[in-house]
Amino acid sequence: MFKFMVIHGPNLNLLGIREPKYYGTKTLEEINSEIQDFAEKENLKVTIYQENEEGKIINLIHQAYFEKYDGIIINPGAYTHYSIAIRDALAGVNLPAVEVHISNIYSREEFRHHSVIAPVVLGQISGFGSQGYILALKGLKEKLVSD
Amino acid sequence: MFKFMVIHGPNLNLLGIREPKYYGTKTLEEINSEIQDFAEKENLKVTIYQENEEGKIINLIHQAYFEKYDGIIINPGAYTHYSIAIRDALAGVNLPAVEVHISNIYSREEFRHHSVIAPVVLGQISGFGSQGYILALKGLKEKLVSD
Amino acid sequence: MFKFMVIHGPNLNLLGIREPKYYGTKTLEEINSEIQDFAEKENLKVTIYQENEEGKIINLIHQAYFEKYDGIIINPGAYTHYSIAIRDALAGVNLPAVEVHISNIYSREEFRHHSVIAPVVLGQISGFGSQGYILALKGLKEKLVSD
Amino acid sequence: MFKFMVIHGPNLNLLGIREPKYYGTKTLEEINSEIQDFAEKENLKVTIYQENEEGKIINLIHQAYFEKYDGIIINPGAYTHYSIAIRDALAGVNLPAVEVHISNIYSREEFRHHSVIAPVVLGQISGFGSQGYILALKGLKEKLVSD
Amino acid sequence: MFKFMVIHGPNLNLLGIREPKYYGTKTLEEINSEIQDFAEKENLKVTIYQENEEGKIINLIHQAYFEKYDGIIINPGAYTHYSIAIRDALAGVNLPAVEVHISNIYSREEFRHHSVIAPVVLGQISGFGSQGYILALKGLKEKLVSD
Amino acid sequence: MFKFMVIHGPNLNLLGIREPKYYGTKTLEEINSEIQDFAEKENLKVTIYQENEEGKIINLIHQAYFEKYDGIIINPGAYTHYSIAIRDALAGVNLPAVEVHISNIYSREEFRHHSVIAPVVLGQISGFGSQGYILALKGLKEKLVSD
Amino acid sequence: MFKFMVIHGPNLNLLGIREPKYYGTKTLEEINSEIQDFAEKENLKVTIYQENEEGKIINLIHQAYFEKYDGIIINPGAYTHYSIAIRDALAGVNLPAVEVHISNIYSREEFRHHSVIAPVVLGQISGFGSQGYILALKGLKEKLVSD
Amino acid sequence: MFKFMVIHGPNLNLLGIREPKYYGTKTLEEINSEIQDFAEKENLKVTIYQENEEGKIINLIHQAYFEKYDGIIINPGAYTHYSIAIRDALAGVNLPAVEVHISNIYSREEFRHHSVIAPVVLGQISGFGSQGYILALKGLKEKLVSD
Amino acid sequence: MFKFMVIHGPNLNLLGIREPKYYGTKTLEEINSEIQDFAEKENLKVTIYQENEEGKIINLIHQAYFEKYDGIIINPGAYTHYSIAIRDALAGVNLPAVEVHISNIYSREEFRHHSVIAPVVLGQISGFGSQGYILALKGLKEKLVSD
Amino acid sequence: MFKFMVIHGPNLNLLGIREPKYYGTKTLEEINSEIQDFAEKENLKVTIYQENEEGKIINLIHQAYFEKYDGIIINPGAYTHYSIAIRDALAGVNLPAVEVHISNIYSREEFRHHSVIAPVVLGQISGFGSQGYILALKGLKEKLVSD
Amino acid sequence: MFKFMVIHGPNLNLLGIREPKYYGTKTLEEINSEIQDFAEKENLKVTIYQENEEGKIINLIHQAYFEKYDGIIINPGAYTHYSIAIRDALAGVNLPAVEVHISNIYSREEFRHHSVIAPVVLGQISGFGSQGYILALKGLKEKLVSD
Amino acid sequence: MFKFMVIHGPNLNLLGIREPKYYGTKTLEEINSEIQDFAEKENLKVTIYQENEEGKIINLIHQAYFEKYDGIIINPGAYTHYSIAIRDALAGVNLPAVEVHISNIYSREEFRHHSVIAPVVLGQISGFGSQGYILALKGLKEKLVSD
Repeated sequence: MFKFMVIHGPNLNLLGIREPKYYGTKTLEEINSEIQDFAEKENLKVTIYQENEEGKIINLIHQAYFEKYDGIIINPGAYTHYSIAIRDALAGVNLPAVEVHISNIYSREEFRHHSVIAPVVLGQISGFGSQGYILALKGLKEKLVSD
Repeated sequence: MFKFMVIHGPNLNLLGIREPKYYGTKTLEEINSEIQDFAEKENLKVTIYQENEEGKIINLIHQAYFEKYDGIIINPGAYTHYSIAIRDALAGVNLPAVEVHISNIYSREEFRHHSVIAPVVLGQISGFGSQGYILALKGLKEKLVSD
Repeated sequence: MFKFMVIHGPNLNLLGIREPKYYGTKTLEEINSEIQDFAEKENLKVTIYQENEEGKIINLIHQAYFEKYDGIIINPGAYTHYSIAIRDALAGVNLPAVEVHISNIYSREEFRHHSVIAPVVLGQISGFGSQGYILALKGLKEKLVSD
Repeated sequence: MFKFMVIHGPNLNLLGIREPKYYGTKTLEEINSEIQDFAEKENLKVTIYQENEEGKIINLIHQAYFEKYDGIIINPGAYTHYSIAIRDALAGVNLPAVEVHISNIYSREEFRHHSVIAPVVLGQISGFGSQGYILALKGLKEKLVSD
Repeated sequence: MFKFMVIHGPNLNLLGIREPKYYGTKTLEEINSEIQDFAEKENLKVTIYQENEEGKIINLIHQAYFEKYDGIIINPGAYTHYSIAIRDALAGVNLPAVEVHISNIYSREEFRHHSVIAPVVLGQISGFGSQGYILALKGLKEKLVSD
Repeated sequence: MFKFMVIHGPNLNLLGIREPKYYGTKTLEEINSEIQDFAEKENLKVTIYQENEEGKIINLIHQAYFEKYDGIIINPGAYTHYSIAIRDALAGVNLPAVEVHISNIYSREEFRHHSVIAPVVLGQISGFGSQGYILALKGLKEKLVSD
Repeated sequence: MFKFMVIHGPNLNLLGIREPKYYGTKTLEEINSEIQDFAEKENLKVTIYQENEEGKIINLIHQAYFEKYDGIIINPGAYTHYSIAIRDALAGVNLPAVEVHISNIYSREEFRHHSVIAPVVLGQISGFGSQGYILALKGLKEKLVSD
Repeated sequence: MFKFMVIHGPNLNLLGIREPKYYGTKTLEEINSEIQDFAEKENLKVTIYQENEEGKIINLIHQAYFEKYDGIIINPGAYTHYSIAIRDALAGVNLPAVEVHISNIYSREEFRHHSVIAPVVLGQISGFGSQGYILALKGLKEKLVSD
Repeated sequence: MFKFMVIHGPNLNLLGIREPKYYGTKTLEEINSEIQDFAEKENLKVTIYQENEEGKIINLIHQAYFEKYDGIIINPGAYTHYSIAIRDALAGVNLPAVEVHISNIYSREEFRHHSVIAPVVLGQISGFGSQGYILALKGLKEKLVSD
Repeated sequence: MFKFMVIHGPNLNLLGIREPKYYGTKTLEEINSEIQDFAEKENLKVTIYQENEEGKIINLIHQAYFEKYDGIIINPGAYTHYSIAIRDALAGVNLPAVEVHISNIYSREEFRHHSVIAPVVLGQISGFGSQGYILALKGLKEKLVSD
Repeated sequence: MFKFMVIHGPNLNLLGIREPKYYGTKTLEEINSEIQDFAEKENLKVTIYQENEEGKIINLIHQAYFEKYDGIIINPGAYTHYSIAIRDALAGVNLPAVEVHISNIYSREEFRHHSVIAPVVLGQISGFGSQGYILALKGLKEKLVSD
Repeated sequence: MFKFMVIHGPNLNLLGIREPKYYGTKTLEEINSEIQDFAEKENLKVTIYQENEEGKIINLIHQAYFEKYDGIIINPGAYTHYSIAIRDALAGVNLPAVEVHISNIYSREEFRHHSVIAPVVLGQISGFGSQGYILALKGLKEKLVSD
């Protein structure tokens, strides 16, 4: 049974409130329920965090390493575009990770087209709304199974 | 029953031969079998093409429109990075589309980090190997069901 | 009696369907009729092609040379922005040519503001909708008459 | 009967003297005669100005608005490349306008390839010599008739 | 009693007409009334100019120096983005000055994000509509009082 | 009675100590007193925070939303130039906000000329020293009254 | 006996006609004769293609792989500067290849100074006119002999 | 006897007042006296203008042409860095011209290092204070004598 | 006796685990022991912190000021490349500081070549592994002694 | 009998020692022997120099001119990328020259992709190891014979 | 009596031979005679050097300092555009210096428009042919006299 | 006993004279004494050179290799920023090297922030004045001992 950590980055606690044209109307709680439902169905152990502070996200990534998680699903939110510290944390623990974005970051402002995180993760999924987390879990599980 | 077109872009006929460190050792035929197996399981009608010529990929996208496909899964290969003509075709037919990359394009050469296609598709999936197509089909189906 | 070739580039076969806010609602057939009506009125022989493939557009330009056309009207579509090969074809045959754009490419995305074709043609007309072809034919004819 | 204002920008009073390889040998007076001849033939009321001062060109554009002109033909000369003030004037009065260049600005120095005016006008015509004004008048008239 | 000059730059005479989504519906006269009302209340002597010509704005800045104004409020309009000549005038006379923008220039086109004027003024206020002038007068007065 | 939150960003607790040529010699306490005096006079309820941690500033912005503040005055300090996460928080809660800078950021190092926050706030005030907060409160109040 | 494929890219069928100051006055047929004469003398089996279409050039490169050629001589013409798809084809088949340019691309327009192909070939020869092909064949043969 | 026009650009009327660390303490009148003294000594006819308005500087350049001046000495002030219109005027009249700067523009702000005027003049002299005009007159005279 | 603060930035708690090819196999504890051994030998009082959170690093720098440390040794980790807030903290407290990097940041990814911190510190040492801290302490002490 | 000068630039005396993955294991002496063998076979007079100093390479180029060499083969080594002085020497003497690189400079670091020398030579050959010199001699001889 | 050193940089020994359209047909000897004639007339002691090696030019500048020259006239040739070492030598000795260019470097290739030397000299003169040296001597003398 | 070469680059012979605000008032001789004192204390054999010529610095680096030095301490002075030839020399001999700068190059002009040498050395030390050489010797020795 795989053990995955899901990390929601900054401002994702505002889901349902925040710019619905990009992020939809589901709340974070609803999304987390969907994730846990899927996890149960797929027999995965998933722990979910939401954190606005960059340093705390780094701490979570370290924790995933020390608590022997099998992988990380991370939506780094705005930190995607500049947090080399989060990038280094992911590269440092060397766990398979997937970067998820609810909106299609490539159809938004220019500065959202570049991810400093993407080069150190296994893969990236963007534009599928909350379903992106489900696809990421599925993709990560299949990857680990096939390795 | 949804009807999807899968388009493999240039050089993907070389899969299994071509730079295995990026693209793995599965042949295109094996990947296509996986796609069709999944399609059957999910009750999807999937037609698959591989095309090296930019203009012919444009023709396929037009064909998807005229033959009333419900969506497109496209791996534009190297055209990802410069074919505004393929972008315009996708924007022109206005069908939901997913961009798939077998390798994680963000951990390769700088020039592969930019997609001219991504701004006009529903979403992008990269880095999951051949499984990316499966995730794309699943994601696209769920999207259409939920709309 | 002048003999002109009109070349419509990629995706222009979608006219009427494709992004009407930029391209209007006339179909390519309707535009071609307008062109032929004008040609007849002005006593011009005009042959019209539409082609999605870059290489085939190059072939048409060569053909214009070998079949002794007096000039070329070309709407290079998306190839405007990167096809140095089409530019070289036009420079190579050294026929007077006019670049036409249905929409005002300068009021759209940044990447559409640059034409690699424009430096080697006689002139450029953009933003007049389908009427741009008529203006181009008129302009080219007057130019040849006055030379 | 449409009422159009034609504005010749800086240094265009030197036509016939100035760099004939780019601008030809016709004087501004000769060009203005051609314009008025065409206007008469097409039943247009055309008023023509030449102005070297940026602020005075702005004043003319405002005047076109307050005197209820139907449209503006403007050759902004060198101001094309940096006068955001003229751009704002055109955007501010919101009259249909056409930008004309006697030479093909895209086959000259790099800094002439970019127009700050083009994004706010209806269309742009370049490279047709003095005939460009005629094409612009024709194009603008047809546009207004067809709307 | 402080004596301030207010300079409205190019196209601001179009206020009320010009792009109301950016500039609101108040006319320049109405704004000038508000400014004079505030001046009276705060016991300030304020002279107001509107000028479309860059060189004339330079002349006004020189005049402010020679007529011993205590400070300048300037909305340089489009000249904000390129008039190094106006910048040099302000730096040359070395009077305390405030740059005002009616709209939030940072939420508009990229080229409006950069001011060549800002480095030589005391401060900048943008986005408060016509109230920006009032804030500028107040800010400038307090600054002079506290110095 | 309007309820506003004032957020002082990183290093502003050093005011009076820190680089007096840019930031003056007033301490943060003195500035906060001035703010509260003004608030009392204008009948505003103002709560003031100083926070060095990016994530905690995000939390404060969220709190402003959940506690139904009418607006935010924020001096994002160095985060101005790179914290897309703070930008997203402001855009997410969609409260009217004003960005204040004590120094004129446009007359300092190049990297301080660009604000990632400015595009999502109502307005920006820079260069007025501690008085900038007063102007911001006044400007925000008037805006809310006039809407 | 080595078996080499020579691929002439777009517009090279115009040799003798096209911009003689860059490309000389020999026709492609004459050049091909020279190549075959040299091949015979050096005991090489050389097959020569000319192709204007990008996708067809990709197909030829694949064919070289499947038909067990020992190496490729390619003049990618204008595709040199943007065809990542041709680059990927060459990298994919992993055959020793030489890039040839008739003119000295480094003494022409800026955009011709950059080759996207060069990083994946064995070597590059430019500026020697049609003799470049002969040098390439010789160089490639010697390389294979010495390995 | 040669006839030269000296044009002082924007803000040079402030000499003696304006930023003395760059421009020294001589007034424009004093400099003009020096110029006329030198002219008399060298038997040159020199007419001197100072003009803040870009368009008026263009007019002066045209006037120099029509009144058959033998050459122009111009200090374009801030227009040096962006007035393509003044550049075009100088190129248009095709008179030998010298660009003079009182300060060393290359040891000041980055944006002052680039002159749009310099490519079309005979030569440039900067950093010699008011003496630069004398050197320019001398240089221009010698040039005309030696041609 | 000098009192120095050593600050290890984000992810340095992973030393020994994290990318050993860059960071070696020593743990942070081992490095801290070496530092304290050296401090004792050199008669320095050294307090050591490790912190992943940007804001907490700012707090530590402020604390160094208020607790009257003589200097700071800081390895800002990934924050080196973007934390203007840490830069401002160092500039604000105006204590002599040394920036240390375990790896040679100039032989790694492009984005690691630029430090926003370096302009405000006394000096920078990179590439000497854990010994860099020892060199920094020695250098800082000698500097203070010699001043 | 043609007389050619071969110039090996900086660090090429280290061949055999220096980075063998790029430069192979042959020493400069061995390469020079190959060159002289070929020269003898082809009846060429070849003089070979190796020089680390930029100015001395310039002197050699001048010497080639004054001693009436028929052409120059130059491997400018690292000077390729910045020595405009060597470029000017080659342009100044106006002798036919060939630029040779042992390694494929286009598959190495970004800064090695640009040659300031290439625009002024006859042709460039890179990636063929020491054989590149042989190809260059052959190419240069054929060129001179055919002219 | 002032003592000046004149330094001619790389390739200037080729004057008369080298690219006459830029550099004219006078030899360096002829120019040096003109300089010495002028020096005699103006009662200046002038020593002239020509040097192709960057380091030797640095040595000359040092020598000027140690031998108590009053000023330096330098034509750095191609080193103008990249030799920070020569710049540092000039800044280091802190003697008044003038940069001279025979041709107008601003009307040539883009890379010749930028001088790394100019920010540290007194002034720059370009485009006056060999007369530039005379103007520089005159300007430098007057400057020293007037200081 | 380790044998190290210390190389002082261009203009460092001017130490004590040259820009004391950056380089202090010690002469090179004084610094060399300090170095030799330290070397004696640490039982190191150190040979010191100062060289203004780029090519001679390359020769010294080669000499270090052929004379079996254990390491190099180099202050490349201005060559730091452009001498790829020195970089190649260091990479070619593959000896452990340390780059030293007396001043903090990161707090000076932009162009001094980039070192072309740094990527190929063991480590870099800047900003510690002449002490930097001592730290470099110590660091290099410890490194060799610990390897």
